[in-house]
Amino acid sequence: IPQPRRQTMAEYNTNLRLKLPITCIVMEVIVIILFAVFVRYDTDTDARKWHKEKSHDNKSNYENDFYFRYPSFQDVHVMIFIGFGFLMTFLQRYGFSSVGFNFLIAAFSLQWATLMQGFFHGMHNGKIEIGVESMINADFCTGAVLISFGAVLGKTSPVQLLIMAVIEVTLFAINEFLVLSVLNAKDAGGSMTIHIFGAYFGLGVTRVLYRPNLDKSQHKNCSVYHSDLFAMIGTIYLWMFWPSFNSAITAEGDDQHRTAMNTYYSLAACTLATFAISAVVNHEGKLDMVHIQNAALAGGVAMGTAGEMMLTPVGSMVVGFLAGIISTLGFKYLTPILEEKFHVQDTCGVHNLHGMPGVLGATVGTITASLASAEVYGEGMKDVFPDIYEGKTTPFKQAMWQGLSMGVTMGIASIGGILTGLLLKVPIYATPPDTMCFEDNIYWEVCLCHSFCLTLASNV
Amino acid sequence: IPQPRRQTMAEYNTNLRLKLPITCIVMEVIVIILFAVFVRYDTDTDARKWHKEKSHDNKSNYENDFYFRYPSFQDVHVMIFIGFGFLMTFLQRYGFSSVGFNFLIAAFSLQWATLMQGFFHGMHNGKIEIGVESMINADFCTGAVLISFGAVLGKTSPVQLLIMAVIEVTLFAINEFLVLSVLNAKDAGGSMTIHIFGAYFGLGVTRVLYRPNLDKSQHKNCSVYHSDLFAMIGTIYLWMFWPSFNSAITAEGDDQHRTAMNTYYSLAACTLATFAISAVVNHEGKLDMVHIQNAALAGGVAMGTAGEMMLTPVGSMVVGFLAGIISTLGFKYLTPILEEKFHVQDTCGVHNLHGMPGVLGATVGTITASLASAEVYGEGMKDVFPDIYEGKTTPFKQAMWQGLSMGVTMGIASIGGILTGLLLKVPIYATPPDTMCFEDNIYWEVCLCHSFCLTLASNV
Amino acid sequence: IPQPRRQTMAEYNTNLRLKLPITCIVMEVIVIILFAVFVRYDTDTDARKWHKEKSHDNKSNYENDFYFRYPSFQDVHVMIFIGFGFLMTFLQRYGFSSVGFNFLIAAFSLQWATLMQGFFHGMHNGKIEIGVESMINADFCTGAVLISFGAVLGKTSPVQLLIMAVIEVTLFAINEFLVLSVLNAKDAGGSMTIHIFGAYFGLGVTRVLYRPNLDKSQHKNCSVYHSDLFAMIGTIYLWMFWPSFNSAITAEGDDQHRTAMNTYYSLAACTLATFAISAVVNHEGKLDMVHIQNAALAGGVAMGTAGEMMLTPVGSMVVGFLAGIISTLGFKYLTPILEEKFHVQDTCGVHNLHGMPGVLGATVGTITASLASAEVYGEGMKDVFPDIYEGKTTPFKQAMWQGLSMGVTMGIASIGGILTGLLLKVPIYATPPDTMCFEDNIYWEVCLCHSFCLTLASNV
Repeated sequence: IPQPRRQTMAEYNTNLRLKLPITCIVMEVIVIILFAVFVRYDTDTDARKWHKEKSHDNKSNYENDFYFRYPSFQDVHVMIFIGFGFLMTFLQRYGFSSVGFNFLIAAFSLQWATLMQGFFHGMHNGKIEIGVESMINADFCTGAVLISFGAVLGKTSPVQLLIMAVIEVTLFAINEFLVLSVLNAKDAGGSMTIHIFGAYFGLGVTRVLYRPNLDKSQHKNCSVYHSDLFAMIGTIYLWMFWPSFNSAITAEGDDQHRTAMNTYYSLAACTLATFAISAVVNHEGKLDMVHIQNAALAGGVAMGTAGEMMLTPVGSMVVGFLAGIISTLGFKYLTPILEEKFHVQDTCGVHNLHGMPGVLGATVGTITASLASAEVYGEGMKDVFPDIYEGKTTPFKQAMWQGLSMGVTMGIASIGGILTGLLLKVPIYATPPDTMCFEDNIYWEVCLCHSFCLTLASNV
Repeated sequence: IPQPRRQTMAEYNTNLRLKLPITCIVMEVIVIILFAVFVRYDTDTDARKWHKEKSHDNKSNYENDFYFRYPSFQDVHVMIFIGFGFLMTFLQRYGFSSVGFNFLIAAFSLQWATLMQGFFHGMHNGKIEIGVESMINADFCTGAVLISFGAVLGKTSPVQLLIMAVIEVTLFAINEFLVLSVLNAKDAGGSMTIHIFGAYFGLGVTRVLYRPNLDKSQHKNCSVYHSDLFAMIGTIYLWMFWPSFNSAITAEGDDQHRTAMNTYYSLAACTLATFAISAVVNHEGKLDMVHIQNAALAGGVAMGTAGEMMLTPVGSMVVGFLAGIISTLGFKYLTPILEEKFHVQDTCGVHNLHGMPGVLGATVGTITASLASAEVYGEGMKDVFPDIYEGKTTPFKQAMWQGLSMGVTMGIASIGGILTGLLLKVPIYATPPDTMCFEDNIYWEVCLCHSFCLTLASNV
Repeated sequence: IPQPRRQTMAEYNTNLRLKLPITCIVMEVIVIILFAVFVRYDTDTDARKWHKEKSHDNKSNYENDFYFRYPSFQDVHVMIFIGFGFLMTFLQRYGFSSVGFNFLIAAFSLQWATLMQGFFHGMHNGKIEIGVESMINADFCTGAVLISFGAVLGKTSPVQLLIMAVIEVTLFAINEFLVLSVLNAKDAGGSMTIHIFGAYFGLGVTRVLYRPNLDKSQHKNCSVYHSDLFAMIGTIYLWMFWPSFNSAITAEGDDQHRTAMNTYYSLAACTLATFAISAVVNHEGKLDMVHIQNAALAGGVAMGTAGEMMLTPVGSMVVGFLAGIISTLGFKYLTPILEEKFHVQDTCGVHNLHGMPGVLGATVGTITASLASAEVYGEGMKDVFPDIYEGKTTPFKQAMWQGLSMGVTMGIASIGGILTGLLLKVPIYATPPDTMCFEDNIYWEVCLCHSFCLTLASNV
């Protein structure tokens, strides 16, 4: 019987004992100080303000924004912590890190995002006022960081991830401000601001952190049976709650309703495309879990911009169907090329799930915006395209701004990712060596029996 | 150390490379064409219509149906994709197929159900108008297909399952139309239209697909430790969200509230009955995971018809308690008889979880309807039994229609299932051979280590 | 190859065949009789009453309490059944019992709690009127029982657990009545009534049930790789939905909104503290799953009292940060001392997760109450501190009652736990022997392959 592989790595460089606590505590203290100075309850969460406002406007409690958005918020929250967290547990020896580091960087990012998004577009009299909508926005920003985490999964330490999160959240807020407030583009579900941004930022980072000898850990960079089932928990939660994600911050009433429904049909069509393409590209005609776990979600990504528009149900299905095809083909044919030719090691294939479908979504949004007409939208134009409604712009111009926003987002994300990658190359962050990537054991107390089972199996 | 079992099956007949993609793409294209021709946003999802209606009726956004039903919809959605999907992962080598094929056929069925249910009872001026209520109904119909999937689990290819879904959804919509619109029966949570229909349809199919040599795969038709834990995820989600399922499309206000509460207490009582009977029927006095995973849910099935009625909390508990007893006894004593005497191979025991408790639920609904009185319901009669309220019928007649509906449903489901089974016997659908049932490996890329571990264990 | 360990335990004393069914059925029959006599629908769930009330008060359906609280209820429900259930699956051979017994005693406790809480503070004209708020309260009470279950996990039979539940729920209702209705303390999220009560009750029981020879089962009292991932499902669900838990029964409008948001930020800060301390207390600088699974939740416990108050977001973060530090240090340093010096064998470390953070939460609530002022709360004082608003008490006095409530809760819980422990020592409940603790095999049908794999691994 083979012996469990001995862990003989020099431990000094991956030891987190000082590096992680110092990073966490310094960051949290900074966050706490900034919250103390800048952050206040908004009207719907402040006891005095809400009761004052209510009596003035004859409002009832059910008009509190909480009841319009909290169920959507909780669905988004599940996507961030269960969805992203478990989607990445597919690796055989990296489950603790996938779900654990996802937990850590998400918990940090949502605090930092509250501040950064507040500074750029939530200031009232010098204070950041927060409520359920800012909580959703913070979770959205966190989503972009987790997408980037998917690109570098298995090759970075938690210290690196936290530093990446600080920079990415900041740039996210700047880009979001440019896209939504300067260019006045629409992107409620974040095809551009979340998915394109998160994907290209992560690809930038992983390109700079390229490891030519990553094949030394390659035997760990794959799944086992039950790790794939854990990953399916993540997939299914993301798939189910994507309608809530895209509709979480659209206008109340028909807008939220329509966005959720468009996304629902897009995802359903995407799933059939994914199964079809997964079988056809396999020589034995077998399905591949990687495709099902990921590409079936592309229909949600692709509805991030146009979901709230009058795209029609059938339009949504066509978009989802295309997204599933593009994404599955990307996993099969593009990922190996990106790694071999362009030295981009994209562990989870975020380019296929978030990058390309995000570009599709932004493009669909551009086209749909250019077709907006008073005949179709009626008074609802006010909510979807307020600038067109007020005569400040035309559908054609709106479409131009949509397209420009996509370009701006890709630029900021790629450059930001590359610069962040350079910063993360400094060898002080407890980075794993090439031989110990995709391995929980260096950062977590792991009982030996699991290692043993895997070793035993891999030696047969 | 034993070698992993070699997979020597003739691959030509289970190869999905052409069959699955063609089926998926043809079906999706048909769906897309029909959606383009027939499907439109309803008033609550259409930008123009909602804003026009709102200004006319002085409606506020919080009166949009989205806020009354979307949280329930999401709970139902979780039951369909996580609940049913993971409940069936109990088989040791069939987890990918359980959750994956569940995903595929559910994603297809909800699209097809939108069309079929729309044709039979959702047409407005020649168009099918859709919103959150039609989404819930589509998910409900999908539930029936997944119940039937449970009966044939492990013995059918995804191509067969998709064809089964096409037929079953169509017949479901016809039966639903007869029961709810012709016979005017009440069945908000679907004891009849969903559970009886899904169970007897599936039993019909599996009877025709009877495999006398299924014992060749029998060693795979059981669970391992962690597969039972995955299945418990499915069980618990179904159990928790069943109150939302039964109340999702009942009338707004007290009806949704009462239905959810009745179901909650029914399920709680059912759980105690299940544990009690599971221990008493075991010679060593040990509990059986199969019972806990399934029979504890029978209390939800049994409340599908009477849940919205004034059954009282204690009435609900008595019904749940009986459902748990019947279901557990069914798993222990009836399932082997069905297989040996009647050649019905019911993999998940859907007859025990959906069939018998569905009959109980329909019966309870019949009795409760016959007892409806103005004294108990007051003005609320309008919502629960509009025909009685308007004097079009009497409680006794309503009860007759309820009982007749149960019979009609069983008839259509059984005959439909048998005919579908005959169609699925045609050997062109990549059906697994008797020796390779309950085995992911023929349809999925599976890493060898899992096979190895199981083989190793089974040889000790 | 080593042989699977033979299960040679005398089976007569752990055989559940009569004991469990009798306990379950007797209890359920008593519950059913009491429900028949005492329990009725409340105004929002009764068809006649709601429609009558609605026409009188010109109410609309969206004012039904269902729409204010049902989404929160479902989140709480998920915490009780998935959260607590899976959190305890970390033990390698005790997953069935963790999630299964959690299911059983929760299903019983919520029924019994409906009665006990109804007797003590829900009687109207001699009847207990129930609706969504009583369902939330019943789930809350169940939470306390499950906390106590965590303390005795692996060392008790399901019969013992059911008897513990009967007593604990009863005492919970008495204590809740004293704290909320006699002392008029505020404790919406239950830092005192749920967490302190559940923890100290459980510690009392486990102290009396002390097993000096528990080391005979010690090799099973640890996790394996995938059991830790299952436990993370529980952790993440508890973490995500804690904002709903704390806000589920606070006043409508700004109160629910503010409570959810305070808890959200508290938990985020707590998570960073937990990772920091977990790394710093480990000699190799590695993270420990036990800490992440548990201590990251302490921020929710600590917000149970003050969550609805005007604590400010930054105040919440500071509380969460402290809770994470205290809890992680408790797991590392206090748990071994409790076991060795005080003979308290606390399997899940509930003292660290619920006991100490509960005391912190009660203390924060006391301080925050003492600082309440009309300037900060405005008219909102009416909802948060009605007695102060009406001039019946002062902030200082309110703080005194808060502090006293903590003491009363600890007293009743500890003494109640000790007395319950004495009752459970009677050797008639199918208690496991010292050598068979933390072992599913004595109460469940378990396939041998799992035992084999673990034995194989543990012999290397």
